[in-house]
Amino acid sequence: MYSLGLRTLKIPLRLYEENRFRLCEKLKNILGEKAVGAVVLLKGGDEVPIDATDITHVFRQESFFNWAFGVREPGFYGAIHLGSGKSTLFMPLLPEDYAVWMGHIETPEECRHKYQVNEVRYVKDIAEVLTQQKADLLLTLNGVNTDSNLSYKGAEFEGIENFNVDKDILFPEMSECRVYKSPLELEIMRYVTKLSSDAHIEVMKTMKPGMMEYQGEATFLAYCYKYGGCRHVGYTCICGSGSSGSILHYGHAGAPNEKPVMDGDMLLFDMGAEYCGYDSDITCSFPANGVFTEKQKVIYNAVLRANRAVIAAVKPGVSWTDMHLLANRVMLEDLKKADIVKGDVEEMMKCHLAAVFQPHGLGHLIGLDTHDVGGYIPGKTPERPKAPGLRSLRTARILQAGMCITVEPGCYFNDYSLNKALKDPTLSKYLNQEKIDEYRNFGGVRIEDDIYINENGCEVLSIVPRTIEEIEATMAEGANKKI
Amino acid sequence: MYSLGLRTLKIPLRLYEENRFRLCEKLKNILGEKAVGAVVLLKGGDEVPIDATDITHVFRQESFFNWAFGVREPGFYGAIHLGSGKSTLFMPLLPEDYAVWMGHIETPEECRHKYQVNEVRYVKDIAEVLTQQKADLLLTLNGVNTDSNLSYKGAEFEGIENFNVDKDILFPEMSECRVYKSPLELEIMRYVTKLSSDAHIEVMKTMKPGMMEYQGEATFLAYCYKYGGCRHVGYTCICGSGSSGSILHYGHAGAPNEKPVMDGDMLLFDMGAEYCGYDSDITCSFPANGVFTEKQKVIYNAVLRANRAVIAAVKPGVSWTDMHLLANRVMLEDLKKADIVKGDVEEMMKCHLAAVFQPHGLGHLIGLDTHDVGGYIPGKTPERPKAPGLRSLRTARILQAGMCITVEPGCYFNDYSLNKALKDPTLSKYLNQEKIDEYRNFGGVRIEDDIYINENGCEVLSIVPRTIEEIEATMAEGANKKI
Repeated sequence: MYSLGLRTLKIPLRLYEENRFRLCEKLKNILGEKAVGAVVLLKGGDEVPIDATDITHVFRQESFFNWAFGVREPGFYGAIHLGSGKSTLFMPLLPEDYAVWMGHIETPEECRHKYQVNEVRYVKDIAEVLTQQKADLLLTLNGVNTDSNLSYKGAEFEGIENFNVDKDILFPEMSECRVYKSPLELEIMRYVTKLSSDAHIEVMKTMKPGMMEYQGEATFLAYCYKYGGCRHVGYTCICGSGSSGSILHYGHAGAPNEKPVMDGDMLLFDMGAEYCGYDSDITCSFPANGVFTEKQKVIYNAVLRANRAVIAAVKPGVSWTDMHLLANRVMLEDLKKADIVKGDVEEMMKCHLAAVFQPHGLGHLIGLDTHDVGGYIPGKTPERPKAPGLRSLRTARILQAGMCITVEPGCYFNDYSLNKALKDPTLSKYLNQEKIDEYRNFGGVRIEDDIYINENGCEVLSIVPRTIEEIEATMAEGANKKI
Repeated sequence: MYSLGLRTLKIPLRLYEENRFRLCEKLKNILGEKAVGAVVLLKGGDEVPIDATDITHVFRQESFFNWAFGVREPGFYGAIHLGSGKSTLFMPLLPEDYAVWMGHIETPEECRHKYQVNEVRYVKDIAEVLTQQKADLLLTLNGVNTDSNLSYKGAEFEGIENFNVDKDILFPEMSECRVYKSPLELEIMRYVTKLSSDAHIEVMKTMKPGMMEYQGEATFLAYCYKYGGCRHVGYTCICGSGSSGSILHYGHAGAPNEKPVMDGDMLLFDMGAEYCGYDSDITCSFPANGVFTEKQKVIYNAVLRANRAVIAAVKPGVSWTDMHLLANRVMLEDLKKADIVKGDVEEMMKCHLAAVFQPHGLGHLIGLDTHDVGGYIPGKTPERPKAPGLRSLRTARILQAGMCITVEPGCYFNDYSLNKALKDPTLSKYLNQEKIDEYRNFGGVRIEDDIYINENGCEVLSIVPRTIEEIEATMAEGANKKI
């Protein structure tokens, strides 16, 4: 059982046993008779030093390894014997005096009990143990993450050259497993997303003009850790005010949420906690001073209608690309009503006009990674579309029950994007430049929910004020709160 | 000018100009005539992805590069021409549409203005620019960090093979420069240490039995970021309660501050904020319930007296190793009075008995790294001592005005350490086993201050309640505070 005490979620170790079982079933189907002697071999994450110093980044377990074993410490390996279904963890052998610096050194037996696997041995003995286990085929995790284009480098150990190793089978199958959340995984997703929702509400109640953007980040981080046991967040917090709201990945080192929040600014805060490795990802957009202007209402409601249209339409069998297009269409209809764009909406759709206002995809799978694996699996899922806006989609899958995905339409007034479109005759004819210029420093609105696809449609996991009335009421409640 | 608004410290860019000037003067002295065409070439840090995902650790600039240029973004190089004293930054050339995802792309001229260097060019042009600058000797930063034993890998770029490169001169000289804080650097150290002190006081006022250890960490992090603009801390927070207080690096992934705090526990909280790359490092030890027991008073006062004795004795010309021994002696005297150890204190000193209770060194240089560089520089500073306790000293230097160092004596009841000593006849004869057994689950006390060595002695930068009376009064003040 994993828990961080108080009211934090208790997670039974059965979660990991089930995950391993799901993976084994899948692989046995593929391998047939060869499965008897096949062993999945995974390597856990290592601590990452900050440059050459002796200080490390706070350790976060590698997600595939976490999915299979739930181990929280660095330096482990893990093996799952397909024939017997038995799991073995390999722990690092630590020097005795480590006890003074790092605490009690667990014995293999203590570790076995802690993680409920069949056996625990030392990393140095991997080759010996795998030989004893008659592993005649090792499946290692090699593949490319389609969000980062970085490669997963499968487990290696001294003596691996004496084994028969397959580097191709495991990655797509294990990614596919991770896409579908088990009931226990769903419980964690519900927990971490509700917690993040509450933290967003706390931020909404405490932000005021005159504060710095990063104070929203600080409030969010503190809430999730203090009340929810979340030491990590899923990604760097995005706390954009005014024009910064139009910068999709604001908050990075070159723009670290450091502007003062001004009266009249729209805020776009995209933040999500991580519990036990599972991530949430929520964006709230709201006026800094607690009351929407008419201009803010127009954009906000256009995006909200797009968000709601998708949430009403998703269900198993629906194409995610179609959902993206649905959100685009709804938003364009509203922007047309507001005279920001002009002409025929269907024609706008054909030339992907919406990408001028929303250059990013509608959403992404979410789970143990914020941009979860499995978005594109060659030969198994629809390929990445090429059209503007669509090419940024992190998946083009047909939705199925069990998936967790974000729904995050947005509308941004980004100078680079607008200027480029205004120079492009196929796009500019739909744009009302005068009206757009009125919105030049508006920033942006994104409304991002995390949903779970079920048999009937979806369950919305994020629970935050969404209508203009709800947001204004929440902020009014917080108006007299001490900052 | 660097600042994060509100009441955060404003740092003039002159700081970096002065640092570069100090380094140039040192190198010119060494190189003589060869200095005319010599160029210091440094590489800044890169973003570090989390495993193979597209999420990165929040970027922290590499400390040597930060010291010389104060650049806050990843992917830069910097050059300082010793002959002319001119500085050149090389910035990454970003694709145009980066503007949508990451914000306005600065021009070299904007970047030059922002960091007040003589010239800014693109990274891709390094070889060309250095050739134009007639760089006939490149000094790169290669060396070993004596705290981590990891190597700094000096700057490399395409075409470097056409230059004359020296990898030996720069590292020791630049490390030596970093050891001595300029008045502007001292201002930052004062700021970040005062801020961390205030955050510790906030933690002291809000911790109660029944809370989780990590709630202290969360409170500290939030305070430093929200009120001080500190996105980073210098190291992973150590929040030990009860017996965990005897684990020197508690708080890591295998023991992540996750125990509930119990009534009667001693707390040992070691946490320090980082501002603009500069770190503080403070440990406060206090009773969870706000009132010291008699047993807690004994240990606390022994450590406090050791801390105060060192602070009273430090001044230029004093050996840090001697300060460590002074702290040991004072602590042993008090432990003897309390009947925890028995016999002659001078004899105890000869067999390094104090290391049973304090296995770590008295302190370490501090600055842009928590364990700052320059502790041991071959040929320039005293070598690492070999005796128990002393071998963990992160420096054995003779103190000089301008150094910042921590003073952190401690007394821990660590089972591994005690059991080992009780089995060792040379040590066990000084130990009162019965009394020690009474303290078995006590945990530990560390009292850590950050000081600046000046001409007369030292300035204590950390400002927290230290006497038993001060701590009890502070905690009483917080007793009715909402958690």
